[in-house]
Amino acid sequence: MSFPANAAEESGRYAGRGVSASKNEIHAVVDKLERGAFPGAFCKLTDDFLTGNPALCNVTHSDGSGTKSLLAYLWWRETGDASVFRGIAQDSVVMNIDDLLCVGVTGRILLSSTINRNARRIPGAVLAELISGTEAFLETLRGHGVDIRSGGGETADVGDLTPTLTVDSCATAVIARESVVDASRIRPGLAIVGLASGGLCAYESVENSGIGSNGLTSARHELLCAYYAGKYPETYDHTTDPSLVYCGAYRLEDALPGSTLGVGRALLSPTRTYAPFVLRLLRELGSARVAGLIHCSGGAQTKCLRFGTGVHFVKDNLLPVPPVFHAIQKAGGTSAHEMHKVYNMGCRLEVFCAPEDAASVLAVAESFGIRAQVVGHTEASQTGMSNHVTLRTAEGEVLEYAGS
Amino acid sequence: MSFPANAAEESGRYAGRGVSASKNEIHAVVDKLERGAFPGAFCKLTDDFLTGNPALCNVTHSDGSGTKSLLAYLWWRETGDASVFRGIAQDSVVMNIDDLLCVGVTGRILLSSTINRNARRIPGAVLAELISGTEAFLETLRGHGVDIRSGGGETADVGDLTPTLTVDSCATAVIARESVVDASRIRPGLAIVGLASGGLCAYESVENSGIGSNGLTSARHELLCAYYAGKYPETYDHTTDPSLVYCGAYRLEDALPGSTLGVGRALLSPTRTYAPFVLRLLRELGSARVAGLIHCSGGAQTKCLRFGTGVHFVKDNLLPVPPVFHAIQKAGGTSAHEMHKVYNMGCRLEVFCAPEDAASVLAVAESFGIRAQVVGHTEASQTGMSNHVTLRTAEGEVLEYAGS
Repeated sequence: MSFPANAAEESGRYAGRGVSASKNEIHAVVDKLERGAFPGAFCKLTDDFLTGNPALCNVTHSDGSGTKSLLAYLWWRETGDASVFRGIAQDSVVMNIDDLLCVGVTGRILLSSTINRNARRIPGAVLAELISGTEAFLETLRGHGVDIRSGGGETADVGDLTPTLTVDSCATAVIARESVVDASRIRPGLAIVGLASGGLCAYESVENSGIGSNGLTSARHELLCAYYAGKYPETYDHTTDPSLVYCGAYRLEDALPGSTLGVGRALLSPTRTYAPFVLRLLRELGSARVAGLIHCSGGAQTKCLRFGTGVHFVKDNLLPVPPVFHAIQKAGGTSAHEMHKVYNMGCRLEVFCAPEDAASVLAVAESFGIRAQVVGHTEASQTGMSNHVTLRTAEGEVLEYAGS
Repeated sequence: MSFPANAAEESGRYAGRGVSASKNEIHAVVDKLERGAFPGAFCKLTDDFLTGNPALCNVTHSDGSGTKSLLAYLWWRETGDASVFRGIAQDSVVMNIDDLLCVGVTGRILLSSTINRNARRIPGAVLAELISGTEAFLETLRGHGVDIRSGGGETADVGDLTPTLTVDSCATAVIARESVVDASRIRPGLAIVGLASGGLCAYESVENSGIGSNGLTSARHELLCAYYAGKYPETYDHTTDPSLVYCGAYRLEDALPGSTLGVGRALLSPTRTYAPFVLRLLRELGSARVAGLIHCSGGAQTKCLRFGTGVHFVKDNLLPVPPVFHAIQKAGGTSAHEMHKVYNMGCRLEVFCAPEDAASVLAVAESFGIRAQVVGHTEASQTGMSNHVTLRTAEGEVLEYAGS
């Protein structure tokens, strides 16, 4: 059992690469701002400024593919195959819409995209894949009943700001107040249904490694070898301790132990969207019976800490950990405690519901071929108003995380 | 008289720093996409996906402060004054909303922000200024009747993607179709009223240099001296020809010839918004009497080339060129032809209207203390359906630009 302080945890390998998993510093600024119409919800919702209808509210959300674009860059440079950037387009979209799902938004989404590039290294052929890849993915979503449209975007040539490229998106939606899923309803006595981040679900054509789009800075450096540091110095921060840069054993084309995917394909596996699942779930159960939906993005298995009050999240029946995470953990000798805070570890969406509704949630997941199970439950926190997470790994290790 | 081909122009000093002013490569990709509900408008407008009302349409728009953030970085590092980033927050917002103004949007705007940072170089104190600076600027706008609200944003630690920071925003609005200002209405026979980008207008507290947020990569390198290359190597692309990097004569604290502002303050002068002006203009004239509004951002005095059909834009009475642009031109020995394609040269907004309405437009500008004049007119293009711009500078030089 480990129970380190936050400060100690922030000095881990993830922080060593200049990334804050807990975002404490950012929350210190943002948490002072007005919290919106549903202060405890997964995303900030506002009054309906866009049309002024008191029965509606608005949400606008920004996120992107983060450093996963660098993996696509390496793949493209090594293979000449620019189509790999279509997956990055999907990552950028999903990092937004899967957050929106968590407040109950499953349609009427308007998307804008921003690509900041170094024009010397990123030619029009890459932009074309990113832009047409975005359009194609939105069309796929619409085919599953998820009404999302592109409103355009911006491409900026800012070589002094980036040696390669960033791919970001912004998704905006209008939703009826009565349809909002408000994670502040998360309370003791609920079941936690976890949905697998990997495998092959009904609306995917290729096996998903489960990696998503979080933790990719560390994943890339832990798994890939020094070959990439030497050949592509534009893909890492030269102020990072060299012992943490591309310190792994693999090249992109190498096999990944325990997986049918190679290392490169596993790391580049496009982030699964749960949009078709949430659309059907909310139609079948209604939003009132879903106490909360948590996208295990930044913060991963500890993301839930920020929602509800005085809740002890006990996850003692976690989904199997996909091979890509085993490989990352082994490569860096990373603690299980840090791994579960950085990586989804096989579960990227949690549904909080009454125990008697869990079977219905599982049935919807099964209808899409998404592996799911009751991964745990909530109970009253023993530490008063603050939240707490307890995880039990498959190896029997018990991990504890305290909320702020 | 100069009349260079586009290819030759793209090999200029601006292109030498990895920036395309004409964005030909990007337009080649984007122009294949569906153009939306008003194909010739300044921004892409879509059907009202957000609420499904056939009388409305939507617009979502992304842009940011570009490399101007690097000037703030230099200023902050040299002086310790992080409040300079409040201006960058304004730049990022204005680069979006002043584009939205050009389709007639003056309110009901929802904003989202994205900061991609290198957490080692950009601490929480800088984030705090960016975030609170955004909120403060939106409050100022609301004070002038421009209804704009923040819906939140994202801050990402991506040190492998940027050595410093990028500051981007996305603005989304819903507008009645009948209120849209559609720049496709730009036709021969109109007056072009130009509004000054600099000076001190009624809703500003400090003199504006007029620089805006376009051309800042070149402006920074042309004016600032090698001191910055040596001390802050993280602020430029090391693949740029060294002779084009920080090749100027100035330090930030130096005086700018002909100006009361120093070089640093002039380059960092926050982009003026024309929102209060356009709000009053559309109330007084109605959107039907405004044929077009052009924000002279990327493309600057040639931006208009992309709007209307078979139009010859004759601008023979340009506004005075502010000192900052004279200094940039002199420093690099840049041609007047390139200068007017990269920099607004003193005019960042053009109003296209019937000649008899020009006086009303001027009166509204005067009511805000914004210098304005009839800078030219439109006539039928002599080259068929393609557009054409002719500029006559104060020195009597005649510059020609052909549309694609």
